[in-house]
Amino acid sequence: MSTPTSTAGSAPLHVDLPGIRCAVEARLTQFMAARAQLAAKHRLPAEVPWTLGGFLSAGGKRIRPLLCVVGWHTCDGGPPPRPVLQVAAALEMFHAFALIHDDVMDHSATRRGQPTVHRALATAWGKGRAGLAAERLGASAAILVGDLALVWSDELLHTAGLAPAQLAAVLPLVDEMRAEVVYGQYLDVTATGRPSADLDRALRIAHFKTAKYTVERPLHIGAALAGGAPGVLAVLSAYALPAGEAFQLRDDLLGVFGTPEVTGKPSLDDLRDGKHTALAALALARGDPAQRRTLRALLGDPALDEEGAGRIRALLVATGARAAVERMIQDRRDQALRALDQAPFPPAVTTALRQITNDATARST
Amino acid sequence: MSTPTSTAGSAPLHVDLPGIRCAVEARLTQFMAARAQLAAKHRLPAEVPWTLGGFLSAGGKRIRPLLCVVGWHTCDGGPPPRPVLQVAAALEMFHAFALIHDDVMDHSATRRGQPTVHRALATAWGKGRAGLAAERLGASAAILVGDLALVWSDELLHTAGLAPAQLAAVLPLVDEMRAEVVYGQYLDVTATGRPSADLDRALRIAHFKTAKYTVERPLHIGAALAGGAPGVLAVLSAYALPAGEAFQLRDDLLGVFGTPEVTGKPSLDDLRDGKHTALAALALARGDPAQRRTLRALLGDPALDEEGAGRIRALLVATGARAAVERMIQDRRDQALRALDQAPFPPAVTTALRQITNDATARST
Repeated sequence: MSTPTSTAGSAPLHVDLPGIRCAVEARLTQFMAARAQLAAKHRLPAEVPWTLGGFLSAGGKRIRPLLCVVGWHTCDGGPPPRPVLQVAAALEMFHAFALIHDDVMDHSATRRGQPTVHRALATAWGKGRAGLAAERLGASAAILVGDLALVWSDELLHTAGLAPAQLAAVLPLVDEMRAEVVYGQYLDVTATGRPSADLDRALRIAHFKTAKYTVERPLHIGAALAGGAPGVLAVLSAYALPAGEAFQLRDDLLGVFGTPEVTGKPSLDDLRDGKHTALAALALARGDPAQRRTLRALLGDPALDEEGAGRIRALLVATGARAAVERMIQDRRDQALRALDQAPFPPAVTTALRQITNDATARST
Repeated sequence: MSTPTSTAGSAPLHVDLPGIRCAVEARLTQFMAARAQLAAKHRLPAEVPWTLGGFLSAGGKRIRPLLCVVGWHTCDGGPPPRPVLQVAAALEMFHAFALIHDDVMDHSATRRGQPTVHRALATAWGKGRAGLAAERLGASAAILVGDLALVWSDELLHTAGLAPAQLAAVLPLVDEMRAEVVYGQYLDVTATGRPSADLDRALRIAHFKTAKYTVERPLHIGAALAGGAPGVLAVLSAYALPAGEAFQLRDDLLGVFGTPEVTGKPSLDDLRDGKHTALAALALARGDPAQRRTLRALLGDPALDEEGAGRIRALLVATGARAAVERMIQDRRDQALRALDQAPFPPAVTTALRQITNDATARST
């Protein structure tokens, strides 16, 4: 079924998160440079690899590649070999696909503090075109740049130099991960604009879009690369699912109460879109009839301004929804950390996962 | 590098195109039924597999799966085994992704005589939503259904039961094919709305979107599954590239002069969108100043009506563009058939390719 690529060395394992991040960046930069060369050679539009390369290098926490390599370290103590780093890079490339399409669907203007891909391409192609035509062309071009990111994430995976047994172990997990996140996004998109008191639905969106996609699957993929047995994957899930839900709940709070300078996106977007988050669901469940009426009128109002956003924030506090979400984060964070206490992993692995958990759930992030 | 899965049997090879089509349909139906079961099991939105399954079963010529199996027969005379048929089905699933996203980008209303996926989902999700909100939600949901078709085409490929050597031979071709068609679509989308006399650009779009994607790559993938050497792939290219260009040029003519009952889409769409086809480029190159002015005013006019379309059609004839495209089709068709005359393939393979070529380039199709 699966074969370990090497056994743990004699030196104690050190999980070098900044080093992993740096190696993944280098792999992505190198891959995109090769794509730009190929585009020039075949007279293909240079702005396609250029735009995607710019998007990839504009930032991001690289949490999925990091977790992939940490997952690999659960079963292998040596420095991560090139194929493992390239699979980690493939996960980041896949994430670029997901974000670029997300931004088209949400009509978002900025991401990572910069214009979104569809906005940048609408500007580039908009000269001499009417506003709506430029906007539509920008969206079409961005859908295609996103499609290419998905195609290229596959190419990174296929050309990583994996052994047949590694490929056989990883491909089913990758296939599942991709379907899960697209389904999660579908649940999200179709609930957006009309949030309700349905907490279960909000948590199911968080389960698929974050707990499974962002945390569990990258860890599983890394462990599978190192020949991890099903038991290892189960222990990783016991950590990943509560941790990932906590990450999403923190993200929901930051999307409403965070400062745009830190989050890289306007703090009105989630409210104006009417995202169906646990935060919104709890406020609608806990509010009195007048509070619920106000929330229903304001959440998802495309014309929402700062004054209206302030009224929503006050209601999220007054109904106790914000405090309830903080407690949910704490509960899930504790559950995830307890799973690590009992995990049969090298101490450096649990230390790295604790650090990632704390960074992604802390109030100040 | 690659291993033939079996040697040719003693009975003369028979390429059973209707039988291949039927086997591919069955594989797609079975796969989608399993996806529908999984969605029910995990409480995921049932309309996603249902919509995609409906799209797949609504028709289509299945030319890519057919060519894949014909490519396989260039090196293997036995009946196509299940893994080969499943790879063929994966190509059709990939094509569903391409068409669903195409229709979103082109804002097309009908495909295969039925509402496009984004229109169907806009109707399904539009109850109680304003027109624009419903339209946007339909587009978002369709982008995601398309993304899933791409993810599932990968899953079909990964679970086809290929030997490691087959997988190693096929994955690079699949990766190239996908990037080529997305680039081709990008060239198409960014040229749409402002056609020019640039024939080279129109032919480059046809090269990537049709010659390579629709004809050459499916044949290559099939041949690679059977262990075909690079020489076989080169012979297939000598046929495929001119044939594929001829297919696209015929499609351009049908898009303007064809009857909607046969093509399954309104005959005004290409003109109203202002598609940058060889037909339009030649008319703009050959017309006198007054004809060019009229063409520039009408091609890409969102308000184009039947009267305006009739004026464009008359100009496409009067400038000699229509006749020139007919000659280009004939030249390319002849070149493709001459390549088959010299190809070292079993007679049944060349017979099948001749039949496909005639069907896809005939005036009456």
